[in-house]
Amino acid sequence: MSTSTDLRIADALLLDEDAQDLLFREARTANAFTDEPVTDEQLAAIFELVKWAPTAMNTQPLRVVVVRSAEAKERLLPHMAEGNRAKTAAAPATALLAADIDFHEELPRTFPHNPGARDMLAGDEASRARMAELNAGLQVGYAIIGIRAAGLAAGPMTGFDAEAVSREFFPDGRHRVLVAVNIGKPAENAFRDRLPRLPFDEVVSAL
Amino acid sequence: MSTSTDLRIADALLLDEDAQDLLFREARTANAFTDEPVTDEQLAAIFELVKWAPTAMNTQPLRVVVVRSAEAKERLLPHMAEGNRAKTAAAPATALLAADIDFHEELPRTFPHNPGARDMLAGDEASRARMAELNAGLQVGYAIIGIRAAGLAAGPMTGFDAEAVSREFFPDGRHRVLVAVNIGKPAENAFRDRLPRLPFDEVVSAL
Repeated sequence: MSTSTDLRIADALLLDEDAQDLLFREARTANAFTDEPVTDEQLAAIFELVKWAPTAMNTQPLRVVVVRSAEAKERLLPHMAEGNRAKTAAAPATALLAADIDFHEELPRTFPHNPGARDMLAGDEASRARMAELNAGLQVGYAIIGIRAAGLAAGPMTGFDAEAVSREFFPDGRHRVLVAVNIGKPAENAFRDRLPRLPFDEVVSAL
Repeated sequence: MSTSTDLRIADALLLDEDAQDLLFREARTANAFTDEPVTDEQLAAIFELVKWAPTAMNTQPLRVVVVRSAEAKERLLPHMAEGNRAKTAAAPATALLAADIDFHEELPRTFPHNPGARDMLAGDEASRARMAELNAGLQVGYAIIGIRAAGLAAGPMTGFDAEAVSREFFPDGRHRVLVAVNIGKPAENAFRDRLPRLPFDEVVSAL
């Protein structure tokens, strides 16, 4: 690619460079954290920012349990994959990000101009579960960006017994934990080498 | 909540306020677009930013076809839900965001320190499909943020025949289109009223 094309690409973003670095370019998955706590205010600030990002039919199916206390950590750790256990034990907070299969119950409030939406979805749990997982998946992406927006590092993990964690922290049986995310200030040895990304022309084609 | 708590929440973000507005607070799902084209440079800039966001085992299962030409639009429109057809026809670009079920083939390049990863996943297509859809879902979230970072509006949609669109645009049968996103500059009548979000204490609990 020519240098002039590279320049046009760099110029194509409206987001300022500090923000690009904070959220994407310099942000890294953290595997070790300082013991500085993650505060209620930080959790609220992340939520109040990312809640505005879109979901299909405004379904907002993500539900979150943030594990901070030693007692709650003890309930979580046995279900983590061995390679994720020590860092999860040491992280000041671990957010369990789950899809609420019964998100349709909130639609009369969240999608009020379509009063039939709740009943339409009530009879089809399989479609609803798919819809919950897809849209909560988008919201996991937004949440990771939001954690970085608060100047914190995220350490997302899927290496855990999702059924057991769902049962332990969402005992109503109506939620599926998709991703667990360690949150905190990165410690000195927090980062591994950056892994390669696929090139544009293998991922995107334009017709 | 007291005013001092509100102030501490507002202060808890490191991301500057302009960026907060651009990506989340003032960004809106667009339903109408001007005819200003979406350029190759904009597509590349969005990709080069969001490619850095994390996926499990660096799997990066998202694959994208961007539909811009009249010919490609004609192949897409019959599969869109009726309510999404006119706005998709009029949008300068529509990105089809798909999960690649065979993402494991790239792991020797993208996860090189674990040479057994590809073979471990090769034998279990059901787990791989779940992993592809979850991680591509996160990447859809990143992509929507990236479109906004380029100063463009996103109009994400799930109202279409996903099987038919996958077959039409990913004829190898190894991809599942999850979300279609109209992209462009918003026209004057682009936005509907903002829909309500669930409150913090219904979504997040801390233990």
